[in-house]
Amino acid sequence: MIKSVGYAAQSASTPLGLFTFERRELGPHDVQIEILYCGVCHSDLHTVANEWKNTVYPVVPGHEIVGRVVKIGEQVSKFKVGETAGVGCMVDSCRTCPNCRESFEQYCDNEIIFTYNSPEKQTGKTTYGGYSNQIVVDENYVLRVSEKLDLAGVAPLLCAGITTYSPLRYWKVGKGDKVGIVGLGGLGHMGLKLAHAFGAYTVLFTTSSSKTEDAKRLGADEVVISKNSDEMNKHINSFDFILNTVSVSHDLDAYTQLLKRGGTLCLLGVPENPHPSPNIGNLIFKRRVIAGSMIGGIQETQEMLDFCAEHNIVSDIELIPIQKINQAYKRMLKSDVKYRFVIDMASLKEE
Amino acid sequence: MIKSVGYAAQSASTPLGLFTFERRELGPHDVQIEILYCGVCHSDLHTVANEWKNTVYPVVPGHEIVGRVVKIGEQVSKFKVGETAGVGCMVDSCRTCPNCRESFEQYCDNEIIFTYNSPEKQTGKTTYGGYSNQIVVDENYVLRVSEKLDLAGVAPLLCAGITTYSPLRYWKVGKGDKVGIVGLGGLGHMGLKLAHAFGAYTVLFTTSSSKTEDAKRLGADEVVISKNSDEMNKHINSFDFILNTVSVSHDLDAYTQLLKRGGTLCLLGVPENPHPSPNIGNLIFKRRVIAGSMIGGIQETQEMLDFCAEHNIVSDIELIPIQKINQAYKRMLKSDVKYRFVIDMASLKEE
Repeated sequence: MIKSVGYAAQSASTPLGLFTFERRELGPHDVQIEILYCGVCHSDLHTVANEWKNTVYPVVPGHEIVGRVVKIGEQVSKFKVGETAGVGCMVDSCRTCPNCRESFEQYCDNEIIFTYNSPEKQTGKTTYGGYSNQIVVDENYVLRVSEKLDLAGVAPLLCAGITTYSPLRYWKVGKGDKVGIVGLGGLGHMGLKLAHAFGAYTVLFTTSSSKTEDAKRLGADEVVISKNSDEMNKHINSFDFILNTVSVSHDLDAYTQLLKRGGTLCLLGVPENPHPSPNIGNLIFKRRVIAGSMIGGIQETQEMLDFCAEHNIVSDIELIPIQKINQAYKRMLKSDVKYRFVIDMASLKEE
Repeated sequence: MIKSVGYAAQSASTPLGLFTFERRELGPHDVQIEILYCGVCHSDLHTVANEWKNTVYPVVPGHEIVGRVVKIGEQVSKFKVGETAGVGCMVDSCRTCPNCRESFEQYCDNEIIFTYNSPEKQTGKTTYGGYSNQIVVDENYVLRVSEKLDLAGVAPLLCAGITTYSPLRYWKVGKGDKVGIVGLGGLGHMGLKLAHAFGAYTVLFTTSSSKTEDAKRLGADEVVISKNSDEMNKHINSFDFILNTVSVSHDLDAYTQLLKRGGTLCLLGVPENPHPSPNIGNLIFKRRVIAGSMIGGIQETQEMLDFCAEHNIVSDIELIPIQKINQAYKRMLKSDVKYRFVIDMASLKEE
């Protein structure tokens, strides 16, 4: 076993703190990665606080991982020692269902092994995530990462990036389309950058007028204050696609009515309390759609990373030492981050 | 003006009865049709009872009209006197918005002129529907009807037929697909016939096991009793498309979870009370979709009528004289009809 160190929560009510544990020895297809950077996703907070009622403690969060390959199993063909690599939300899946076979592992019909808080296939133990010095992952679930970009800014692409890239691609967003992004957080700011890069006319919906300037810098052609119904009404029947990154309960009708015939409102978050029941008339009278989307498959995640390398796209981040993680969580609860915290894992060596 | 006779409701609380009124004189593009048959749609009941709070009395319902052209305006090119013709839910629309220009008149961004209870463009008066001896309609909103089929059975195609045909075509239902139809009424029985004709493996969902045999006769490969959760659970993650014809409030999650990755639950009715708010997780975890669809455009309605003529598809009907219309309404409220009442308009001559 490989002695490892990271930050874990021991219960829903205790702060994250130093934790030593073991990673599995490398199997023939495994890659050992020294973690350089790990992004901090809202899922980490939900899991630490056991909000989804499935947390196994101690939990080591983190699924936006960028690092360097330090060792490979004897049959590994995809990576060499010394290369940079990434790990996202999944480290394995059933590999046999129709979805896995088409590289839609995120929609596996059997069991996705998430990067943390899932039963590891090889050992049966709970997986530990990226708030740690190293990780061992099957090469088929590891991504190649270009050295061209700032690696700390790349880390959030592994979750926030692919979560917005996948639906924008699936619904074929591009030049000539009018696209809305609802909410300017970790997901929203990536949605803006990507929709803009795909050539769409991009509109940010936000409740806060203070975000206007920054949204335009990030790629918005227009900013609409969603609380202002006059402003909203100007856009009725005009959107091809709206990507809704807001996961607290809110009125979806305000957005469905802005879609053209056949337009799609795609939701990325499951609200803790249900949204008010959507007006079905809004769907029927214009053949509109409410959809959902979750991260992306391994093949598509690689495509996204390659696209971002080619177009010089990374996340806007605030780099923190791991010792500030509990403070970062508190700030995230107040949406006080532009737009993703990333842990500099070198700080773990100071423990 | 053209003296006409029909059946109208004078208020929400009075039964339908004999009513004499005037149709407009023919303009250059108008077609005058002697009505032979008119189907009885649930929308007729909703409008007569003012359930949508927009009924202008007296109201002459009926938008599943088949008849014979008896006179044409001087510039009419699409029809000759003596030909059979059909009129569906719309008799005009703005003709200039993007949807109208692409023959998606049913999604007109400005104003659809419905066959009854809409302000007529030419006169400003309220339109009167097909429970009458004749109708005058612009040729662009009149359909050609083949004489090959039983004309009484054709009438319901103009609403129930196109309402199910359009979404099945739009979501490309065909051979190799597993398709669900929820509810076996006027719409559901047409959905079964059409999905079967398109080559899909077709499953009927019903609350009533007494409908099994008839559903199979109509084209179902399989019947699932939707109240039986064990039966429902056998179909999880397996449907490409589910067409939901039920418009009373019900649990949509029971159906979304049956869809494969990327599958669509398409709703055809607006419930009087909202459905329970759908579980967004069901959408996100398999990139599923909830959509709506409404009738079809003029071009597509013609395509549907031609398809039905070619494949010998009509509605299963019960032919009634107009004198039995109030009794038919009472039976429809108890779902006691297989599967559509159609009025034999010859009966109007006996008044």
